[in-house]
Amino acid sequence: MDSTIVGVLGGGQLGRMFAEAASRLNIAVRFLDVGANTPAKQIVSVPNDLPGHVDGSFSDAAQIRALAKKVDVLTVEIEHVDADQLEAVLEEGLVRAVHPSPATIKLIQDKYLQKVHLQDAGLPVVEFSAVDTQNVDAAIDRFGLPLMLKCRTQAYDGRGNFTLRTREQIPEAISALGGGTRPLYAEKWASFEKELAVMVVRSTDGDVRAYTAVETVHENSICHSVYAPLRVPVAGLDKRARDIAERAVATFSGAGIFGVEMFLLPGSVLVINEIAPRPHNSGHYTMEASDTTQFENHLRAVVGMPLGSTALKVPSAAMLNILGLADMDKDKDALAKTLAPAIRSLSVPGTTVHLYGKQGCRIGRKLGHINVVGKSDAAVRERMGVLLDELALAKASAESGAPWNAEAAKKRVVSSPASPVRSADDFSNPSPLVGVIMGSDSDLVVMMAAAQVLKQFDVPFELTIVSAHRTPERMAQYAQSARARGLGAIIAGAGGAAHLPGMVAAQTCLPVIGVPVKGSSLDGVDSLHSIVQMPRGIPVATVAINNSMNAALLAIRILGTSIPSYLDKIEEYMKEMERSVHQKVECLYAQAWDYQVPGK
Amino acid sequence: MDSTIVGVLGGGQLGRMFAEAASRLNIAVRFLDVGANTPAKQIVSVPNDLPGHVDGSFSDAAQIRALAKKVDVLTVEIEHVDADQLEAVLEEGLVRAVHPSPATIKLIQDKYLQKVHLQDAGLPVVEFSAVDTQNVDAAIDRFGLPLMLKCRTQAYDGRGNFTLRTREQIPEAISALGGGTRPLYAEKWASFEKELAVMVVRSTDGDVRAYTAVETVHENSICHSVYAPLRVPVAGLDKRARDIAERAVATFSGAGIFGVEMFLLPGSVLVINEIAPRPHNSGHYTMEASDTTQFENHLRAVVGMPLGSTALKVPSAAMLNILGLADMDKDKDALAKTLAPAIRSLSVPGTTVHLYGKQGCRIGRKLGHINVVGKSDAAVRERMGVLLDELALAKASAESGAPWNAEAAKKRVVSSPASPVRSADDFSNPSPLVGVIMGSDSDLVVMMAAAQVLKQFDVPFELTIVSAHRTPERMAQYAQSARARGLGAIIAGAGGAAHLPGMVAAQTCLPVIGVPVKGSSLDGVDSLHSIVQMPRGIPVATVAINNSMNAALLAIRILGTSIPSYLDKIEEYMKEMERSVHQKVECLYAQAWDYQVPGK
Repeated sequence: MDSTIVGVLGGGQLGRMFAEAASRLNIAVRFLDVGANTPAKQIVSVPNDLPGHVDGSFSDAAQIRALAKKVDVLTVEIEHVDADQLEAVLEEGLVRAVHPSPATIKLIQDKYLQKVHLQDAGLPVVEFSAVDTQNVDAAIDRFGLPLMLKCRTQAYDGRGNFTLRTREQIPEAISALGGGTRPLYAEKWASFEKELAVMVVRSTDGDVRAYTAVETVHENSICHSVYAPLRVPVAGLDKRARDIAERAVATFSGAGIFGVEMFLLPGSVLVINEIAPRPHNSGHYTMEASDTTQFENHLRAVVGMPLGSTALKVPSAAMLNILGLADMDKDKDALAKTLAPAIRSLSVPGTTVHLYGKQGCRIGRKLGHINVVGKSDAAVRERMGVLLDELALAKASAESGAPWNAEAAKKRVVSSPASPVRSADDFSNPSPLVGVIMGSDSDLVVMMAAAQVLKQFDVPFELTIVSAHRTPERMAQYAQSARARGLGAIIAGAGGAAHLPGMVAAQTCLPVIGVPVKGSSLDGVDSLHSIVQMPRGIPVATVAINNSMNAALLAIRILGTSIPSYLDKIEEYMKEMERSVHQKVECLYAQAWDYQVPGK
Repeated sequence: MDSTIVGVLGGGQLGRMFAEAASRLNIAVRFLDVGANTPAKQIVSVPNDLPGHVDGSFSDAAQIRALAKKVDVLTVEIEHVDADQLEAVLEEGLVRAVHPSPATIKLIQDKYLQKVHLQDAGLPVVEFSAVDTQNVDAAIDRFGLPLMLKCRTQAYDGRGNFTLRTREQIPEAISALGGGTRPLYAEKWASFEKELAVMVVRSTDGDVRAYTAVETVHENSICHSVYAPLRVPVAGLDKRARDIAERAVATFSGAGIFGVEMFLLPGSVLVINEIAPRPHNSGHYTMEASDTTQFENHLRAVVGMPLGSTALKVPSAAMLNILGLADMDKDKDALAKTLAPAIRSLSVPGTTVHLYGKQGCRIGRKLGHINVVGKSDAAVRERMGVLLDELALAKASAESGAPWNAEAAKKRVVSSPASPVRSADDFSNPSPLVGVIMGSDSDLVVMMAAAQVLKQFDVPFELTIVSAHRTPERMAQYAQSARARGLGAIIAGAGGAAHLPGMVAAQTCLPVIGVPVKGSSLDGVDSLHSIVQMPRGIPVATVAINNSMNAALLAIRILGTSIPSYLDKIEEYMKEMERSVHQKVECLYAQAWDYQVPGK
């Protein structure tokens, strides 16, 4: 496909997944890392007559030169490399290109300079300042407590960070952060509502393409899990996050993929936390969920191929990291305990396990990840729920130090997930596909049938009261945030001058189903006409007067366009209705003059 | 994850993709094939201190033994192996298991015995009979002409088959099929409407799980392309095909994935053509389109892990094979010409290229494949269209023998696809998402607005006349086949006693949108009430009288639940409406008493 040989500094899991993408495009890759059997080297078998991988450190200048001599283009799977040497081999013409550029890598290596650069480019960042060991107090005066004290370089996965909660901790913090030997800076504490990340790929021409924004969950400063797409009750936040990420990556030189981590602060404010100039843990979900994986897009970018589509190809996705739960030298079952959620996931639909071929296991080491996809957030959350339960059990087992009980784990694998119970929780599913709203609790007697049908068909929904006339702001907020929260359809019931369905439809792009509720006069014709006779431009899908049951069935048919299993259920339901009429035919024939109408 | 070492007979592209799945689960694999650098061996680098791959033929008994000694479980990527030897190593306990069982491989190797076996199990197959060179005439008497004459063994990709069109061709056929040295059988000519395939995975416990049925397209008896899911105007055919495939695979022993090829004959009759006991070209689409790839499910089956979900995770998918277009020893540009569609596909969203790392190129050799996914059949067909155009150009270039014009190809890569033209073809998109129907051409003046909106929003649709009262059978056929043909929503316009929307909704599980058309009396209220007041169980999404424009906008909102770009367009449309009112506000203020209502 392309005769370029790509050299990668680092041969761990990111290199391994990069190699997978390269093999699929017949592109040769060589890795520089310590050992002959690193995760990446395991899956690239170099023929004996060709120059092979390099055994050495990615920060070793001589070994970087050795790799450069074997390849056409250099890239990195980690930013803590010798960037000066990358500059040198490029200047000497040992390689055609280094991506991203050594200047970019250098800039990003120093988190303080990175922040200055972003701020100078007009991008939003958390407030920060340079500090030395003598003036930490001044930073506290400026930013308050708690205060993040960070090493400017060589800091990742929480290492090199210290959260100062009192002034008394200053000496402890300085000691923990290198005792004055490493340059530091201070950041204002960010009371974020969520952590976000956006992967952005940048071509050699400087074009940038963002993936969808995702929510990232960290534990002990290490990425724990990721959810895509981002769900927040704020219209347009995803687009804002992508725009910021694209603008940020556009400021750097060189090609490749970048991971842009952000905080969502109160008031829907977005700020950049930091940027990684390489494939990133928060982009692993792309392997099963996106048109083009982050690794393939990185490859395309560094060899100068056209960038691939960054669109999500599935409705919803998540990622769970498999991090070492115990140290192998202390607990011989460390690996088995750690892999329990991965093994469990084999029985969970929509999951794909990616293990990295690492031999050892120590606490916090990234040994693999599990990607989860599904037709809805609710499906993905349910699947993740099974894995998170298993992870909690595995953690407890690792902490207890007890031997691994493979039999017990196996039993869990075969047990089916608990069937959902019918409770008040049903009325507010955290990942609803359908919103059922009504103008007044007096409509509930009519609207309950919709809730019952949704429950019967296993559709996640929420049910609440939104009044057009008495809570117009609540209505606007509800309608405007509906898409961003992941709803697929809204059922709105209203009586009389029934404005709710139409006013909601005017403030959302989702399909809105209107249920005319019969009032004390006019037999519901007032409601019907108020709901159905919408002006051109804003449709409301109107059903029969008081027939909220049909509204729910219609919502399920609508969801069926993306979730085929709902159409299967509707087909089964329709067959059941047909069978039931046939039974009545028989009954009527048998009972004749004595026929009793059921329920009368 | 699992310490089982799997040995594979054959190390070509199927083995390569199997190895990818195995690496992801940390499962070791060793291949038996000729050469050190076969497609599969390229991506499994065995550490020096461990037993490596085997260099030799997969039909060489001694080498099979050599492989067996290194591994725990044996499987195959091709069925033309020495099955007796597999039986022997299993009996001697050299391996724990062979999957599928040697008996299954043997049975399937002989296509005549395979068919007898399937027929005895009550499964539908094309009529067939054993023949020898002396009694071909009798087979012609029985089955007519044309007649398929086939070798019972070692036949694949069209080799070992001969289509007899006249009795005079008998000697030619016999000579082409081994001149009497190879056992033959005859098959009745199948005038199929489509060729189908279903992948089925079978666990060691005998559980079977079918993937979706797909349409396969062959050229010169080699798989050319695949489309998933199957689209036919017959309700329930997918399920029937899956049932047959599952029943067939259930009759075999041993675990693994099977490819079941079928013909769809006139009258919606399904018959099995033949079965492959291994990953299959018709299942490559699963790599980007299904919850679990065929390769991972094969792996899970042979090592005894739980089977993975076989559900499609994307709405629509296709696969295009990359087959050698010229012989490298005759045309030095053979490979470049062959790969042109793959290079082109890098600019087409939703495509993933899989190359097999093969060095040479000869006509018909499988060098890779391109998977295409999309949010609708129409999107996938459009993307495939670009690749098929490129394939046609590449073929012409290969046949002309002219040198490869990389510059011209590059220009095509950057050119955008032709924008769709507005023509009568729009009214019958071959892969419609919306069906617009009306009871009479007199409704067209009202319904045209729907067509125009769908066109404006780039929604593939079909528009036709279906009358409830005058063509009830056409209506039933239309409604019942709508889902199987891939429609997502139906817009039905009707006036007066307007039965069409409700009667269509009663015969499909899709959402049906009703447009009440105003007649000469009652101001359309008759139509409105006839459409909206549906009984419980069957909803019709009713819009305002004569407002087919809103019906189209509603259909687009509905499709937006699976195609987010449509929701983006609706949001933009709503903003545009808002802007337009603001302009009128300005206008009204400026012109005051002189205000002219636009269009009046």
